[in-house]
Amino acid sequence: MKIENIVRKSVLSQPVYQAGKPIEYVAREFGLDPDGILKMASNENPLGPCPKAIEAVSRSLDNLNYYPDGGCYELGRKISKVMGLNPSQLVFGNGSNEVIELVAHALLGEGDNAVMGAQSFIVYKLSTLLMGAEAREVPMPSLRYDLSQMLDAVDEKTKIVFLANPNNPTGTVLSQNEVFEFVRALPEHVVFCYDEAYGDFQDNPVDIRGLIAEGRNVIGLKTFSKIYGLAGLRAGYGYCSEELASYINRVREPFNMNSLAQVAAMAALDDVEFYEKSKKLNKQGREQIEKKFKELGVEYISEGGNFIMVKVNDALKKFDALQRAGVIVRPNVGYGLPDWLRITIGLPEQNERFLSEFSKLL
Amino acid sequence: MKIENIVRKSVLSQPVYQAGKPIEYVAREFGLDPDGILKMASNENPLGPCPKAIEAVSRSLDNLNYYPDGGCYELGRKISKVMGLNPSQLVFGNGSNEVIELVAHALLGEGDNAVMGAQSFIVYKLSTLLMGAEAREVPMPSLRYDLSQMLDAVDEKTKIVFLANPNNPTGTVLSQNEVFEFVRALPEHVVFCYDEAYGDFQDNPVDIRGLIAEGRNVIGLKTFSKIYGLAGLRAGYGYCSEELASYINRVREPFNMNSLAQVAAMAALDDVEFYEKSKKLNKQGREQIEKKFKELGVEYISEGGNFIMVKVNDALKKFDALQRAGVIVRPNVGYGLPDWLRITIGLPEQNERFLSEFSKLL
Repeated sequence: MKIENIVRKSVLSQPVYQAGKPIEYVAREFGLDPDGILKMASNENPLGPCPKAIEAVSRSLDNLNYYPDGGCYELGRKISKVMGLNPSQLVFGNGSNEVIELVAHALLGEGDNAVMGAQSFIVYKLSTLLMGAEAREVPMPSLRYDLSQMLDAVDEKTKIVFLANPNNPTGTVLSQNEVFEFVRALPEHVVFCYDEAYGDFQDNPVDIRGLIAEGRNVIGLKTFSKIYGLAGLRAGYGYCSEELASYINRVREPFNMNSLAQVAAMAALDDVEFYEKSKKLNKQGREQIEKKFKELGVEYISEGGNFIMVKVNDALKKFDALQRAGVIVRPNVGYGLPDWLRITIGLPEQNERFLSEFSKLL
Repeated sequence: MKIENIVRKSVLSQPVYQAGKPIEYVAREFGLDPDGILKMASNENPLGPCPKAIEAVSRSLDNLNYYPDGGCYELGRKISKVMGLNPSQLVFGNGSNEVIELVAHALLGEGDNAVMGAQSFIVYKLSTLLMGAEAREVPMPSLRYDLSQMLDAVDEKTKIVFLANPNNPTGTVLSQNEVFEFVRALPEHVVFCYDEAYGDFQDNPVDIRGLIAEGRNVIGLKTFSKIYGLAGLRAGYGYCSEELASYINRVREPFNMNSLAQVAAMAALDDVEFYEKSKKLNKQGREQIEKKFKELGVEYISEGGNFIMVKVNDALKKFDALQRAGVIVRPNVGYGLPDWLRITIGLPEQNERFLSEFSKLL
């Protein structure tokens, strides 16, 4: 019997995530030297991983025969102090990516729906479809969330509203007032899933803890993949009410966060120096790229996160040309944005190299 | 509105996995020195992590700012060579534990069922319930799979039969003939999920590749947590037909296997010396413990894996007494086996310490 007759129906139509290609893949494909390739595609930290985290990891290798602490006790205590929350308000994930899935798994079934922006992180949609629920993608005029249309899309079968701020991939930013008003207008049977993976790069990021304190059904998602430069280790978490956390934790596998991710995340939280350095570098790189984009007269969005969106004709062709020149950026065809490239802000010399190759294509 | 009115119904009744406690937890609870505690509870490798893997990991820390290769290209190539399979026949997981979940997510929905032994790895049941499907637990007389009863439990709504060999937690072992005959008797709409986490400790482990070659709907699960001593890193995989793998991979998150797990698993496969040393140590430890158990006249099961089950009155009380003496073993109350303790085979001096403390309790 064919497997297609056995798998769940939603799996048959399940789209597959298209990740940015690792450097080695591109090197193989184009016959390039991997060391000469510059990857500005996946919003990774150009400074490398957080040094204190790496130090802590290298001290922890001898115990890898033991299973991770499934309860993330030490990390939970640390984060709860930093965040002013109770450890039982936390949900740990194999990257915040997994927490998105856990939220979907805890809440969505057939007949339910989740509301999200049409140009926001694709994993919201994938996780929703995976549970056999409907993904209500609300159009994003000017690549911005249309909050009033999103409210209109919510009905009695809506279980989750997903929102990223700054938004990925568009880079647009909502204010604290906008977010708070929106959440307060949501019906109480809806869980608001607020993805703040890129919030660390903002000067005054929106702080949703007030909404949790008000008793709203809200979960915030944080990651160690971006400003802490630990994407390879997979560390992220959600924070919400104890009640919501207790249910989401029921769908979490026992040892989902590996031991080194736990150790690294703990140490990273102490590395204020690296955090500030990453933020500053990002700000300077943003100015550097914006300046050149203005000179070139190209349209761009540069509001938040560690990336900039730039509008070009036939972005896929330009993506390909850049790739052949050893510079990997991110096309957004999968997001229905065939004219936009997403560029991760790099080190000054990396930005320079990208800008030089990019200029040649115009 | 209360969250319990919003979450999926199956989440409300979802049981939570009870993991063996990390050493630090027990130390805190009983006011003991963590360094003096001996953990023989989670079937971890007493020799520590595979040295070649640790070497490879320590060389890879500088690149942790990059996302893992979501396609596990290099590791896939390596495993496909070792196993004589095509890379597209593989499904990688955050431990083989996650692969169990992925199989369930790909196949099970409400109205479906999965058949399993009543005393087999609890994650089969948890993953089944999580998808809202029925977990058909077939009684295991003498703690052994009753294959004919399992066949009888299969009906037209059965999507998966889970089976671990050696079985965890009971340690009983099925022969190649028994497994092959059983699988050949299954209707073709059923996927056979064969968990061989403990197969590496057997002299002649069952090899199910012949069943895949025959075109049977079979997936084998392997882990790097046991004989390779890499439980903390979370590395495991499934292997099956290309068709089945392609569907299961649809429900896999993009970066589920962290970068260090990939690097470590690759290096571990080359560490034949450590593999053989672990196997030999396990065999000697088994003899050491069996000898003493015979002297003590206790009933035990010692057929496979890196653990032994021993029958005692009021196992939970003995578990507690051992814990106070700084020796952590595994009670099996959650498995409906209130009279049995599971002991991970350790180093000779560890086995000695356990046996000495254990003897005092009889």
